[in-house]
Amino acid sequence: MTTNKRKIINDPIYGFVSIPGDLIFDLIEHRYFQRLRRIKQLGLTNLVYPGALHTRFHHAIGAMHLMQETVHSLRQKNVNITSKEEEAVLVAILLHDIGHGPFSHALEHSIVTGVNHEAISSLIMSKLNLEFKGKLALAIKIFNDQYPKKFLHQLVSSQLDMDRLDYLKRDSFFTGVSEGVISSDRIIKMLNVEKNQLVVEQKGIYSIEKFLIARRLMYWQVYLHKTVLSAETLLVTILKRAKELSGQGRDLFATPALSLFLKNNFTKKDFDKRSELLDSFAKLDDNDVIASIKVWCDDKDKILSTLCTNLLNRKLFRVEISSSPIPKAYCEKLAEQASKKYKVSKKEAAYFVLTDKVNNSAYTADQLKINIRMGNNQLLDVAQASDLLNIQSLSKTVTKYFICYPKDLKIG
Amino acid sequence: MTTNKRKIINDPIYGFVSIPGDLIFDLIEHRYFQRLRRIKQLGLTNLVYPGALHTRFHHAIGAMHLMQETVHSLRQKNVNITSKEEEAVLVAILLHDIGHGPFSHALEHSIVTGVNHEAISSLIMSKLNLEFKGKLALAIKIFNDQYPKKFLHQLVSSQLDMDRLDYLKRDSFFTGVSEGVISSDRIIKMLNVEKNQLVVEQKGIYSIEKFLIARRLMYWQVYLHKTVLSAETLLVTILKRAKELSGQGRDLFATPALSLFLKNNFTKKDFDKRSELLDSFAKLDDNDVIASIKVWCDDKDKILSTLCTNLLNRKLFRVEISSSPIPKAYCEKLAEQASKKYKVSKKEAAYFVLTDKVNNSAYTADQLKINIRMGNNQLLDVAQASDLLNIQSLSKTVTKYFICYPKDLKIG
Amino acid sequence: MTTNKRKIINDPIYGFVSIPGDLIFDLIEHRYFQRLRRIKQLGLTNLVYPGALHTRFHHAIGAMHLMQETVHSLRQKNVNITSKEEEAVLVAILLHDIGHGPFSHALEHSIVTGVNHEAISSLIMSKLNLEFKGKLALAIKIFNDQYPKKFLHQLVSSQLDMDRLDYLKRDSFFTGVSEGVISSDRIIKMLNVEKNQLVVEQKGIYSIEKFLIARRLMYWQVYLHKTVLSAETLLVTILKRAKELSGQGRDLFATPALSLFLKNNFTKKDFDKRSELLDSFAKLDDNDVIASIKVWCDDKDKILSTLCTNLLNRKLFRVEISSSPIPKAYCEKLAEQASKKYKVSKKEAAYFVLTDKVNNSAYTADQLKINIRMGNNQLLDVAQASDLLNIQSLSKTVTKYFICYPKDLKIG
Amino acid sequence: MTTNKRKIINDPIYGFVSIPGDLIFDLIEHRYFQRLRRIKQLGLTNLVYPGALHTRFHHAIGAMHLMQETVHSLRQKNVNITSKEEEAVLVAILLHDIGHGPFSHALEHSIVTGVNHEAISSLIMSKLNLEFKGKLALAIKIFNDQYPKKFLHQLVSSQLDMDRLDYLKRDSFFTGVSEGVISSDRIIKMLNVEKNQLVVEQKGIYSIEKFLIARRLMYWQVYLHKTVLSAETLLVTILKRAKELSGQGRDLFATPALSLFLKNNFTKKDFDKRSELLDSFAKLDDNDVIASIKVWCDDKDKILSTLCTNLLNRKLFRVEISSSPIPKAYCEKLAEQASKKYKVSKKEAAYFVLTDKVNNSAYTADQLKINIRMGNNQLLDVAQASDLLNIQSLSKTVTKYFICYPKDLKIG
Repeated sequence: MTTNKRKIINDPIYGFVSIPGDLIFDLIEHRYFQRLRRIKQLGLTNLVYPGALHTRFHHAIGAMHLMQETVHSLRQKNVNITSKEEEAVLVAILLHDIGHGPFSHALEHSIVTGVNHEAISSLIMSKLNLEFKGKLALAIKIFNDQYPKKFLHQLVSSQLDMDRLDYLKRDSFFTGVSEGVISSDRIIKMLNVEKNQLVVEQKGIYSIEKFLIARRLMYWQVYLHKTVLSAETLLVTILKRAKELSGQGRDLFATPALSLFLKNNFTKKDFDKRSELLDSFAKLDDNDVIASIKVWCDDKDKILSTLCTNLLNRKLFRVEISSSPIPKAYCEKLAEQASKKYKVSKKEAAYFVLTDKVNNSAYTADQLKINIRMGNNQLLDVAQASDLLNIQSLSKTVTKYFICYPKDLKIG
Repeated sequence: MTTNKRKIINDPIYGFVSIPGDLIFDLIEHRYFQRLRRIKQLGLTNLVYPGALHTRFHHAIGAMHLMQETVHSLRQKNVNITSKEEEAVLVAILLHDIGHGPFSHALEHSIVTGVNHEAISSLIMSKLNLEFKGKLALAIKIFNDQYPKKFLHQLVSSQLDMDRLDYLKRDSFFTGVSEGVISSDRIIKMLNVEKNQLVVEQKGIYSIEKFLIARRLMYWQVYLHKTVLSAETLLVTILKRAKELSGQGRDLFATPALSLFLKNNFTKKDFDKRSELLDSFAKLDDNDVIASIKVWCDDKDKILSTLCTNLLNRKLFRVEISSSPIPKAYCEKLAEQASKKYKVSKKEAAYFVLTDKVNNSAYTADQLKINIRMGNNQLLDVAQASDLLNIQSLSKTVTKYFICYPKDLKIG
Repeated sequence: MTTNKRKIINDPIYGFVSIPGDLIFDLIEHRYFQRLRRIKQLGLTNLVYPGALHTRFHHAIGAMHLMQETVHSLRQKNVNITSKEEEAVLVAILLHDIGHGPFSHALEHSIVTGVNHEAISSLIMSKLNLEFKGKLALAIKIFNDQYPKKFLHQLVSSQLDMDRLDYLKRDSFFTGVSEGVISSDRIIKMLNVEKNQLVVEQKGIYSIEKFLIARRLMYWQVYLHKTVLSAETLLVTILKRAKELSGQGRDLFATPALSLFLKNNFTKKDFDKRSELLDSFAKLDDNDVIASIKVWCDDKDKILSTLCTNLLNRKLFRVEISSSPIPKAYCEKLAEQASKKYKVSKKEAAYFVLTDKVNNSAYTADQLKINIRMGNNQLLDVAQASDLLNIQSLSKTVTKYFICYPKDLKIG
Repeated sequence: MTTNKRKIINDPIYGFVSIPGDLIFDLIEHRYFQRLRRIKQLGLTNLVYPGALHTRFHHAIGAMHLMQETVHSLRQKNVNITSKEEEAVLVAILLHDIGHGPFSHALEHSIVTGVNHEAISSLIMSKLNLEFKGKLALAIKIFNDQYPKKFLHQLVSSQLDMDRLDYLKRDSFFTGVSEGVISSDRIIKMLNVEKNQLVVEQKGIYSIEKFLIARRLMYWQVYLHKTVLSAETLLVTILKRAKELSGQGRDLFATPALSLFLKNNFTKKDFDKRSELLDSFAKLDDNDVIASIKVWCDDKDKILSTLCTNLLNRKLFRVEISSSPIPKAYCEKLAEQASKKYKVSKKEAAYFVLTDKVNNSAYTADQLKINIRMGNNQLLDVAQASDLLNIQSLSKTVTKYFICYPKDLKIG
């Protein structure tokens, strides 16, 4: 019965979120979606901000809630959105991240390198569409930007989409970094549609500036916080080492789902051919990774056990950040010390001296722009419309290089 | 160096929490305490309130923060608290829940039945005291109520302690049940000490009434929410079945830490004798339980696999609640149906028709009372001092009986 | 054009409040309603809680907002509310307090004693109904409980109406007494209608308990705060003295609107006969009272100038509260001292030694009850339905007696 | 007795604010300070944002609270601040706005043109210093930037002072424009002192960016909101007309305090010579202005009565904003129409067609800069240190011109 399926979900951020309609209810109930309950939105960030335990499940529901509000607000401005389109755009945002695995970034850089989460999202949507007898077709079209009402796609995926509005708000809330808080209410009220494109009304320009600044702040304060970088780099290294050992024939303890990916290098093609692979992937969540790492703390491979113990007990590596690449000589010097300290070969020492880089740009001018409708009915890219934000800087990619190594290594 | 150890932790509830001093810093860094990062405060409650993912780690830190505020406020009222006592009472509250395992209640009713978390807390504190060369002695005295300044113990453990103040606030915050929110600030400002006992100033009586009502509300709305009961009962049953199968010699997949407790029935005496047991126990966290349950979804034991799949994909049992015990006949009828439906023996059907009961009292008159200091300097139990709250009801234990069974069983 | 009249009002509590429809827009624009912008909801309470400056204007708008939410929620539960009825019930709540003058309570006990604010509300509604050509007829019917759908009246005026929901929330917010905060969202979601009566669903009982407790807390912490009582008693005395002097022929400075009421004793009949009186009354607001008191600080009447200076510079009288009437002898002793200290006659000394009493009951069983719909479809008064709240106490009127006198009087 | 004077004030923003010490307590009790209770921080802004009723009193207390937090934080970083200096800097921030009259900006542009609020602040501080026997001397030195520890002055008055931190936070809170909210906690934690100058630590740069953006947003959304401009321009015009009429010998109704300034043109010299003038000025507050305007609604001067009725009943003029000066011809055309419509001379029509301009710059590079301490120990102006904010734009003064005229005038 329809009415049984209407439900309300408590959200500390929005109060009550309602589930509009049976299709969406059934999608949320689906095991592919339920598994997002066990995948943290911010991976290891809780090691720095202990409140940051919120899941991709809650984020997807939240983004859907904002989409409902936006559809409501746009309709009040006489933007025509049919109820089919409404359902589709809600489904599209609900499933936008469905392909994420646990610690997504880390996984893709270590043991599941052959296929990325976008590809898996696509596969899952197709599979769900089959299961639900074609009811997701329009949602998929919108998701893939193949629908004439471009703004629907833009609400799902652009530089001012419901994904970003929810995650900035949610990540600020749960980390406690209150400065990242944005006023999604106000931004949504400023949205409008013109020639099928999403635009922001002129008086919304200050809100957009603030949104961009908040996003930038969250990047440096949270997403690229150096201790978080250190933890994630450690995790990548752990998973690489485990895969290497598996490759050498070691039968490491692991949950069956994780084991499968430790022992094999699947490519996108494999996923296309062997449909059961998707189900195996969908069995992975944070618990598989952490439960295995816990066991590896006692592994006989000293490198693996050391790295795992460090991560688990939060003895994270020191990080040094630089705007230029880390000099090779410096890395080698550290590796040499690590080699002595941990009595490992110079090659193995590389597991203790880790380098990587991160990028960030507040706004990317060559992606879908945020368009402001000026008083004269002209559309201007926000980078042009704002007299305060520096256009060049705004869209410049900032790259930071970093090196991590155990705190007990001493330089001098 | 001392100053390196001073740290600030972000808390979405209190803003910034500071770690006062090296001992506390080192305790927080200890692996026994770090493991609390992986144990959710509210177990499976997130299946109903998806934000309720906060950990025992965060709660312990938060309760310590409130203790700092309380010590500060009491000193301003000329209550004498030495810095040694301050450190000790902070340590005591920090460690008050250190013995909790994952899904504590469920575990104690299924696979770790021989020893409870209070006993384990005690063992851990003793062990830490050894490691820290006696520095925890005073904290342990206070914790065990063996210190003359009784109010210090009362701040750690009574019907108005920092534990309750923090967990009500925190659980409300993360579930989004805003009605549970209490004003810890105001309550703390109303506390005072008289003849070494904690008392509440008269004008604080309304705040205390509100605190009791909020606690009661949280009980029925969150802690004893019927879907949460259903999930927890399912978990208990799963763990019991797994233990039973292990007892029958099945070598179920499990993480080593969990496996140990599935295969053995340790008693408190075992823990006393074999000190390595404590370490094994301390390796358990939420990940062990969930990761194992995920694997059991595919177990050949149909009962186990069915129950696990139900829990994992959130196909929870229907719950019926009653103020009197569930009639036996009704249970049997349901068991019969379950037996047919799932093609199991009548004995095995018991795994699908579960009964239990829960208790709650808003305030327990025979425990440590909340004393209000009336205008005439008289001390009155809050149950007497309030003209609104019904004394009998307030301290009456409410018992509710419930039965859970699969939603596809039909009665009639 | 219709759309020009749709407007959004910022509210720090609810975010955005929208004005639904032209009639309501025009009523808000009316000078009778605009004057509420200049009448503080909580009179002199800002002398204790400096944030409590919010106006009856903002409260009326807020209560209307909650009514919109309630209508929406009830309709989702298939309660039939036509759009005419919706408009009428919104108008009724919007105007429920339209007859309040500045410092309403004080005014009615001093210079406008012949007519109360309820009577004036009625007169204003009738007058507006004429101006708006009968469009308020249904609203007035609902307001006066003459409409068959009783629940509409109950939403406007009962022990669980939108008035109370908004004022508790608003007063808590602006005073900063966060403990008075109630969850209007949740309470509204618990409301339903049965046989045209408003009922609360059973699971809402804890929210109602909390609402009653919060209201009680606000009474003692804010509405009847002893310094607020002191200030209001001072104001009543000032206005009485000013009226007395006017009666003696003194031409005190006053704004014309205030002057009219200082010099005359109008009765309800006068208001009925002379329609311009209503307009004169509607010209009064907080500014008239305060501006006049400021001038009276320099008045030649020593009593008046002393009292006014005390109020203006916040040299408030000391208050003593008692559960029994203040003994006459005590008053006389104080009056004697005042007589000496301020060199006034014993009769005049009465202006410095003020006694009065206040009442409060958390819930009044003989008024419109709050009905809880129990599981068995039975309706129970909340005082019966709650096992925690003490029925007798809940509905008992608590009376407190108090005496105020200048702080420089000494007893001994 | 000292302890009697310690007090706690409720603030909806900060919770509890404590009054540290007798001098500060006595200053707050002083009638000069108490009058700030009757002067709204944001003048007529409540006509647009009805919650914006907070007073200069509450703001001054709030800024003092932030100063306490800052002193505490700086001391923890080993910045030396003696208790004398602490008291002085608290007094300085408490009194920083003491010279403000009601609707300060409007008053200074109409009836009190000979002296500005800064001059009056200075006079009041000197007078208080006499009354308090020199106890304010150090505070005055700091206020006037004559004390070697420059950072103390900078905390009172600079582009990142406690005044701005509090008013941004407070104005956002009470207007409900949540986007203006800044994280004063975090900014305060980022402050440090170097060579007696206030500096911001490098990782605070994102918070400073956000602070500047929030301030800019509040300017356009609140302080320079066009309806607010319209209301304030109307008020200036009303007061000018009243003064003109007074100059022509009309004896307009006004409170004595306001009357004095309507009938005279006092200069700074007058204030210096006649000390009673300061006391007369200190009697002015919002009530004098509004109470008088209410009476003027019925004045026989048609211009005055029309303008006053418009303001009182919120029939505000239409505003048009332009980035270039309003063309003379356009003004004249409107004046002509006003002349016909209101049957006034062309000269008098000028009272209905009002032009003015407003300026705003987010940050002023030639004032006291906000200095960021970079990693290399170099100090950089924030305009240089931020790679995102456009230096030129940041410090460019934006000027907007506007014209206001009655909504019933039609152009065409």
